[in-house]
Amino acid sequence: MSFNTFGHLFRVTTWGESHGPALGCTVDGCPPGVAVTEEMLQHWLDRRKPGQNRYTTQRREPDAVKILSGVFEGKTTGTSIQLMIENTDQRSKDYGEIAETFRPGHADITYWQKYGIRDYRGGGRSSARETAARVAAGGIARAVLADMLPDLKITGYMTQMGPHGITGDRDMAEIENNPFWVPSAATADQWAEYLDGLRKSGSSVGAVIEVVAQGLPAGIGAPIYAKLDTDLAAAMMSINAVKGVEIGEGMNAAALTGEENADEISMGPDGQPIYGSNHAGGILGGISTGQDVVVRFSVKPTSSILKPRGSVTKSGKETEVVTKGRHDPCVGIRAVPVGEAMMACVLLDQILMDRAQTGGKRGQIG
Amino acid sequence: MSFNTFGHLFRVTTWGESHGPALGCTVDGCPPGVAVTEEMLQHWLDRRKPGQNRYTTQRREPDAVKILSGVFEGKTTGTSIQLMIENTDQRSKDYGEIAETFRPGHADITYWQKYGIRDYRGGGRSSARETAARVAAGGIARAVLADMLPDLKITGYMTQMGPHGITGDRDMAEIENNPFWVPSAATADQWAEYLDGLRKSGSSVGAVIEVVAQGLPAGIGAPIYAKLDTDLAAAMMSINAVKGVEIGEGMNAAALTGEENADEISMGPDGQPIYGSNHAGGILGGISTGQDVVVRFSVKPTSSILKPRGSVTKSGKETEVVTKGRHDPCVGIRAVPVGEAMMACVLLDQILMDRAQTGGKRGQIG
Amino acid sequence: MSFNTFGHLFRVTTWGESHGPALGCTVDGCPPGVAVTEEMLQHWLDRRKPGQNRYTTQRREPDAVKILSGVFEGKTTGTSIQLMIENTDQRSKDYGEIAETFRPGHADITYWQKYGIRDYRGGGRSSARETAARVAAGGIARAVLADMLPDLKITGYMTQMGPHGITGDRDMAEIENNPFWVPSAATADQWAEYLDGLRKSGSSVGAVIEVVAQGLPAGIGAPIYAKLDTDLAAAMMSINAVKGVEIGEGMNAAALTGEENADEISMGPDGQPIYGSNHAGGILGGISTGQDVVVRFSVKPTSSILKPRGSVTKSGKETEVVTKGRHDPCVGIRAVPVGEAMMACVLLDQILMDRAQTGGKRGQIG
Amino acid sequence: MSFNTFGHLFRVTTWGESHGPALGCTVDGCPPGVAVTEEMLQHWLDRRKPGQNRYTTQRREPDAVKILSGVFEGKTTGTSIQLMIENTDQRSKDYGEIAETFRPGHADITYWQKYGIRDYRGGGRSSARETAARVAAGGIARAVLADMLPDLKITGYMTQMGPHGITGDRDMAEIENNPFWVPSAATADQWAEYLDGLRKSGSSVGAVIEVVAQGLPAGIGAPIYAKLDTDLAAAMMSINAVKGVEIGEGMNAAALTGEENADEISMGPDGQPIYGSNHAGGILGGISTGQDVVVRFSVKPTSSILKPRGSVTKSGKETEVVTKGRHDPCVGIRAVPVGEAMMACVLLDQILMDRAQTGGKRGQIG
Repeated sequence: MSFNTFGHLFRVTTWGESHGPALGCTVDGCPPGVAVTEEMLQHWLDRRKPGQNRYTTQRREPDAVKILSGVFEGKTTGTSIQLMIENTDQRSKDYGEIAETFRPGHADITYWQKYGIRDYRGGGRSSARETAARVAAGGIARAVLADMLPDLKITGYMTQMGPHGITGDRDMAEIENNPFWVPSAATADQWAEYLDGLRKSGSSVGAVIEVVAQGLPAGIGAPIYAKLDTDLAAAMMSINAVKGVEIGEGMNAAALTGEENADEISMGPDGQPIYGSNHAGGILGGISTGQDVVVRFSVKPTSSILKPRGSVTKSGKETEVVTKGRHDPCVGIRAVPVGEAMMACVLLDQILMDRAQTGGKRGQIG
Repeated sequence: MSFNTFGHLFRVTTWGESHGPALGCTVDGCPPGVAVTEEMLQHWLDRRKPGQNRYTTQRREPDAVKILSGVFEGKTTGTSIQLMIENTDQRSKDYGEIAETFRPGHADITYWQKYGIRDYRGGGRSSARETAARVAAGGIARAVLADMLPDLKITGYMTQMGPHGITGDRDMAEIENNPFWVPSAATADQWAEYLDGLRKSGSSVGAVIEVVAQGLPAGIGAPIYAKLDTDLAAAMMSINAVKGVEIGEGMNAAALTGEENADEISMGPDGQPIYGSNHAGGILGGISTGQDVVVRFSVKPTSSILKPRGSVTKSGKETEVVTKGRHDPCVGIRAVPVGEAMMACVLLDQILMDRAQTGGKRGQIG
Repeated sequence: MSFNTFGHLFRVTTWGESHGPALGCTVDGCPPGVAVTEEMLQHWLDRRKPGQNRYTTQRREPDAVKILSGVFEGKTTGTSIQLMIENTDQRSKDYGEIAETFRPGHADITYWQKYGIRDYRGGGRSSARETAARVAAGGIARAVLADMLPDLKITGYMTQMGPHGITGDRDMAEIENNPFWVPSAATADQWAEYLDGLRKSGSSVGAVIEVVAQGLPAGIGAPIYAKLDTDLAAAMMSINAVKGVEIGEGMNAAALTGEENADEISMGPDGQPIYGSNHAGGILGGISTGQDVVVRFSVKPTSSILKPRGSVTKSGKETEVVTKGRHDPCVGIRAVPVGEAMMACVLLDQILMDRAQTGGKRGQIG
Repeated sequence: MSFNTFGHLFRVTTWGESHGPALGCTVDGCPPGVAVTEEMLQHWLDRRKPGQNRYTTQRREPDAVKILSGVFEGKTTGTSIQLMIENTDQRSKDYGEIAETFRPGHADITYWQKYGIRDYRGGGRSSARETAARVAAGGIARAVLADMLPDLKITGYMTQMGPHGITGDRDMAEIENNPFWVPSAATADQWAEYLDGLRKSGSSVGAVIEVVAQGLPAGIGAPIYAKLDTDLAAAMMSINAVKGVEIGEGMNAAALTGEENADEISMGPDGQPIYGSNHAGGILGGISTGQDVVVRFSVKPTSSILKPRGSVTKSGKETEVVTKGRHDPCVGIRAVPVGEAMMACVLLDQILMDRAQTGGKRGQIG
């Protein structure tokens, strides 16, 4: 079962609401003896935390993570790791008026219909604040992966904001230099101007995020129902506001012929097979090929906007909703570190599954 | 764990290889007392089975399903249901030459690298023949759903073949009238011509399939990590050759503004909320809204083509591969009933989860 | 997977070490709309907490439980419930000398051998303090059960301390009147004298606990591998120091003949079947019969005693160990509320599973 | 979920009824490259199969196992292994009269009450015939274990039949020389006489079975909720008719003092810790110590006896039941190979879990 848990062997169970006292997660199945500190996790949380620039919600949360169990003298013990982040800037009064009204495009109405009760403050459990716990768990996964596969590198970035893609060539070195994590300085400038306009008009816009893992060996992935791409699709689709997930060519694979799409194989200089292209996104039959693993997902525009939208109340009256809280004009921006965290968790989980079944033995070529 | 099992409560475990003696699945957690016969399951299998027209593989398999357990005097007993389909037309000799060579774009190489052994005949476990077991399991799910929700309707169809979308308006009545399950007679003609050309040239092409569920009540879906959309994404991505999954607007959600994307709500004539649009694809916060649930997925072109492609052998020599077996020029066609089956299984599974947790009680509006 | 999680649908994930800052659990899958307060949970925790009389460890812990998520305005929301208990009386220095030495009969040595690292303070994760989290979770389960089955009653008590059973007839009204939860005032006096002697001599002793559930309807239990008795056996065996679990006749069933053991059935005054005896402990084929569900388990004597025992150090030197900490002379006493909590969790979990699969419909008799 | 599945990583899903066409199981998560043949599995099935001597049911079943998937050219491929055993001697007419009557002590009544439908022929799904699938799966586990741990040895035997224990010293060499798998020739003779009497009188009797694993390294077991002893308790309790499970001292641990029960540790000649006794049954804190793992379980007498017992019919009439089918006077006899099979499955499962989490690295002593 997986109400609030993801992962097969590296298992993360999250808890907490947007405006409760705290949120966090339990990380279970973590290998022992791995160096983990609060500072290491904080590094990743700081990338996601709100209020860092004018393009993200102005809620001021330090998102300070505490390790409550499972780490002793700076190393994981193999027992369950509890991570807690206290909420400090919950202006619940902002949400008083939506207690009785459902915001269009939000989970307000479906949580009510399913459970008959909901913590309406800030979206409660359906708030994107839940993703802070994912980023913390991803920090644990990264620490373990750094031990196991020092050359593995996970990089997330935006490739589209609203209708605008990347202008010109990608320059990965630029990703950390702009608030959008876009690999292009020129594009960052264009998007800034575009988003400023949207923000001022009280609107919002969607985005596409790409996450790439470099350095994953061939042979990782558990067919048929825990394929690497299956797990990645589930992981990304579980993030708030995500509406589509692609591996490699993604939806565009439909338009290709067999000869266009098949990645030809040859022998590389190190005696290992190499590929002439990567339409597959690094995954064949659910198992990694050793190429870059490439995942993309779309994030819809946040529905919390200043423009009035028609809706209904709990008592069944029609009304108009204007959401005045502190929201992200492009919530996709903060989804970048979340996507990276999910990639880290899925890869580690799959590596542990592979280690269980195969013991790390591989079929050799050549 | 989910190596070969999917579902939380309605659990399907599949087994079997393309050229072994048989394949099948165990369906576990099925509600008792539901009428199920081999004929009912055969109806769905016949839609997927190969050799039905010139656009699908010429392998001749009756795909006759046998119920070996879990059904007594025509009704499910609540115990595990075993479904078996015997393989009858395994021309293994077709595959002799690929025992030592990896077909580009196939799982041949990754299965070898992961396991160090593989049944190379017809792709072995990675063959799309595995999906016959899914369709059989989907037949069970449909029987249960028909009991629980008589108005629920699941419909799959193709919306794109290669670069070609649907011409003109959709006419759902046409879906069963053409070999492509496309809701447009004119489009079917155009696609037939296009695919004939491709087939003769020994090539193949991708496709987009859409599956819609009508009549699912609001409140179905288990946040955070078994959201309805998450489970659907995993289910579809687990199908052979799928590279992208979309819910509602899908990847296009990125291009929209908040006011364009939010589906406005009003009160319908029956006193229940209705929506002015369905960008969300019937799911908010991972829970159904009561609108149509809309899922799309892309299927890549099969890599088994007559055009030579560069590859390598197990001993590390470079070579060219031409795949001569009996393959589908557009494997997406036969993915339509598979997508429907996965939708049926996911919906039933989610309904059972909801029944467990909420007992079917719903928050009322109005 | 279930490293630190138990339950199929009502899932409890525990975390925390004996001498860390806190311990607790996440309760997932809880039905929504159930009244739950910290006071309700505290009631159960107070029964288990240490330092209440001279027969339990003198560690002074208030074991005050906080609800951090999943409950809104006094009711469960259906989302994950986080319960936290802060540790306040961790005299870690008591344990300094055992950092390098393994206590015989403890998990010290096996945790070290498995993980290569352990929090040695007070047994770390292997400490019975972990059971506080179970009792808290059991409080949630009891609240839900009280809603669903108001007549259900769960009662735990001791039936044996060391070699001493119960003298005379059982009087259930006495259970709450003595520190041993033994249903016999006379026995309580005898055991008090016996345990005073043991305690003064620095020794310890084992116990047998029986837990009975009255009022569970027939039909609860999920064969074959989540039978009610299977789940109860796992739940009880997972408690620290438990070495045996029995259902109904238990080990003694071996000594009986078929005619002695079979519980004869007749029709009761209310038109429902009744049984002439309960050798089965209320479970047939893994499913409840409607009779009392009877489980017993043995708890070994704590190995933390003042008598010197031969052992070895991490560096492989032989040594003698005398454990001076604050320990329970009969740790079985505090296992009574833990056994009750596990019974509550298992029953609720099984009821939810049954509701998922059968929808609560039952085969009728008569 | 685990309706019909057991195991965390080495997962076995069983299916089939006593009088259906076949029964079997899917074994999932098996490591690849392990030699497995039908003959190897048949060896274990032959030990359990009925009709071998006058002390077991006279039903004549060859219990011939077929491997339908997951094994290629004599080796496991890492994909799901399907094992099927066809039923050949189903005299369903023997059971016609019990279609409307519930046999006391059987699951007849509870299956009916839970599901409202049941295959009444021979107990249907609740029949001990299901254990044939476990033994087949256990054969796979044994093959993998033989590869991983050549010195591991699993031995099951009876230690009690009805009120009679073993007379004199145990001689393990005798186990295979008598129909009761009792390690004592003298005891075998006494039990034969006793059971002949019971059989002729139409009665039945219970038994205690002990299963020992020698050669398991220290460090195997996954606390807190998949402890080695927890998993063994669940595995054994899931076997038909089992009513109690003990580890090491078992229920008797209650009667011991701390100094009696703690197994003292010293350094052995090979520089590894050794224990002066094994009250713990080879498990501390849920993790193996490296000593023999010792599990015992009781099997109740079969309720299918010739002596009339009071019962009720489906329509609520009181009646008397005499069960005339072909039954085991001591069903515990055939539980010996089943217990061994469960031990093999649990150990392999735990070894795979340990390999996943720790990678096989161990904390060193000395």
